[in-house]
Amino acid sequence: MFDNKKQRSKILEFDTVALDFAEGESGDEKPVLKIIDQTKLPGKVEFLSLTELEEIRQAIYLLKVRGAPAIGVAAAIGIYVIADSIDTEDFSVFTADFEAAKNRLASARPTAVNLCWALDRMAKVLQDSCDKSVQTVKNLLKEEAVKIRDEDVAACRKIGEYGLSLINDGDGIMTHCNAGQLATVKYGTALAPIHLGRERGYNYKVYTNETRPLLQGMRLSAFELSAAGIDTTVICDNMASQVMKKGWVNAVFVGCDRMAANGDACNKIGTSGLAILARHYKIPFYVCLPASTIDMNVKTGADIVVEERDQAEVTEMWYKERMAPPGVKVFNPAFDVTENDFITAIITEYGIIRQPYDEGLKSIPLLS
Amino acid sequence: MFDNKKQRSKILEFDTVALDFAEGESGDEKPVLKIIDQTKLPGKVEFLSLTELEEIRQAIYLLKVRGAPAIGVAAAIGIYVIADSIDTEDFSVFTADFEAAKNRLASARPTAVNLCWALDRMAKVLQDSCDKSVQTVKNLLKEEAVKIRDEDVAACRKIGEYGLSLINDGDGIMTHCNAGQLATVKYGTALAPIHLGRERGYNYKVYTNETRPLLQGMRLSAFELSAAGIDTTVICDNMASQVMKKGWVNAVFVGCDRMAANGDACNKIGTSGLAILARHYKIPFYVCLPASTIDMNVKTGADIVVEERDQAEVTEMWYKERMAPPGVKVFNPAFDVTENDFITAIITEYGIIRQPYDEGLKSIPLLS
Repeated sequence: MFDNKKQRSKILEFDTVALDFAEGESGDEKPVLKIIDQTKLPGKVEFLSLTELEEIRQAIYLLKVRGAPAIGVAAAIGIYVIADSIDTEDFSVFTADFEAAKNRLASARPTAVNLCWALDRMAKVLQDSCDKSVQTVKNLLKEEAVKIRDEDVAACRKIGEYGLSLINDGDGIMTHCNAGQLATVKYGTALAPIHLGRERGYNYKVYTNETRPLLQGMRLSAFELSAAGIDTTVICDNMASQVMKKGWVNAVFVGCDRMAANGDACNKIGTSGLAILARHYKIPFYVCLPASTIDMNVKTGADIVVEERDQAEVTEMWYKERMAPPGVKVFNPAFDVTENDFITAIITEYGIIRQPYDEGLKSIPLLS
Repeated sequence: MFDNKKQRSKILEFDTVALDFAEGESGDEKPVLKIIDQTKLPGKVEFLSLTELEEIRQAIYLLKVRGAPAIGVAAAIGIYVIADSIDTEDFSVFTADFEAAKNRLASARPTAVNLCWALDRMAKVLQDSCDKSVQTVKNLLKEEAVKIRDEDVAACRKIGEYGLSLINDGDGIMTHCNAGQLATVKYGTALAPIHLGRERGYNYKVYTNETRPLLQGMRLSAFELSAAGIDTTVICDNMASQVMKKGWVNAVFVGCDRMAANGDACNKIGTSGLAILARHYKIPFYVCLPASTIDMNVKTGADIVVEERDQAEVTEMWYKERMAPPGVKVFNPAFDVTENDFITAIITEYGIIRQPYDEGLKSIPLLS
């Protein structure tokens, strides 16, 4: 068990996703994608150095790295790492291999838009460089991956600043799943205001819904929040209504995996129910995301494909034995859509947007 | 794993709680409380024969027997079994031992009213018999325990009949926790309409919320429903909103652990949130309970004591390892209160009651 306090506070000194370098077979330095294995948390802090296409895809599929922004950065660094290992001087061979790897990575998870968004940005580097040498393109891909990472850190900091303006010292904050540092490179989206506020000496009481079936709230949010010294209480998802009713929650902050042009927010399963409860109890409900998570090609949430995952995640994973009787059906959608009407405000690195969202989102640079 | 279909269907031939007899040390027959150990389900079907005060109390405290009506019947049979073993001819010694055992049993769980209700009924037998021999009183206690059991079976059947009149063949039904056969002696309360309907050839699609932290929905409701051949789908609690939104749910049926005189219903944690969601989606929300679960001494749900249970139920129980980081707080209330305003109808063995509930509940015999 990871219970040394000094060691725990260190987690926040790491980037969740990083470009690292390792010595190759021939003795020269090779780029690697470095991630913290989130399926092992909170029991074990284990870092992985990935270089192969299939292991990078598996890491995304198996949620070793998860959270829309972190998936985007991992895909950018990952495709650079793979591209760097393509052993050719022929641009068209290089492009064909790159495209194949890109498509394979893109298929890992269907809902989070950042995966394709990051891969498309990386592909654009290739498209704009057909007159350049393969080595030059590799350098440009590295620059772009680093830029995507740096932009994520900057965006999350900005989201934190804007979010901070909406809460007060001592507030009770509820969050769902993990939209924290572990879902990004640093700070997080929904948890960025809490982390930034904590750095400035503010104290919040955070309620993290455990977030079945994969327990990201209990395993990950509670981990990074308590590591940062924040007053953290874990509840089961079905206790959220009771905690709100008790008056302990001043605001709900959640992340987003894909936002439609009208502000409908696709996020971890359970988010939309939480928004309905928050409205009932008159608690503001904030959705935090970098602009890269907004998909202007999707008009409303109804058009977003929601990933359905393995039934065993519900009935067997984590457990000592199967907890459901044999033969019963299981429904395991990974996400749901919160209609824009239930969102009090959308917080991006460009500021706080309020209704009407379709106009507000269009005002974001590059999205109009 | 209990996966033999013929064997599985047999579960419904057993009473969840029963008065049984075993050979005592001196060769004579001794009464025992026989229960199915619900903490072992669905993996193992194991029956327990209990005779000692502390093992009976533990069985209730540890939820080996649970569900308000089943707890009531177990307490009635249990106190009879204990009383039968009191070795005295002196009525006042007998009464003192009985009272001590009664108080000890009553302290096992604070919220379900049926526990005290059944013990008080048994104590009344004593109070009315101070002119009788201890052996006669023991016989009367046995009669009363059997009567309480038989009344439970009859009440559940009636609840099933009334509930059936509110649903149609092919309907999608959502339920929370287990208010089925395993929460009573037979049939159940919330699940009685489904079991009865199934016997008559109707087909329902039942969605059982897994019901964290103790998973009664996934372990128990799914077990007894699928054993009865009913189309059963397990979902995580936070998926209920999504399943409702898809239009799959025609009605929600839940049980109750204690109902106040105004119809406020204290039931498994998560019930009140589900009621808010059901209203949002315009789905009828039915609370099913025997009249013994109505506590006319409690004016509103706000006056009901809600049991808070061990944190380890949330963070460790069932799991291979602890799933929360060390040091985080955990809130683990076992129940919540659904305000009467969110209940479409209350179903008891005396019929279907609609608003205003304070008047309707008063019309129930013995409750006015």
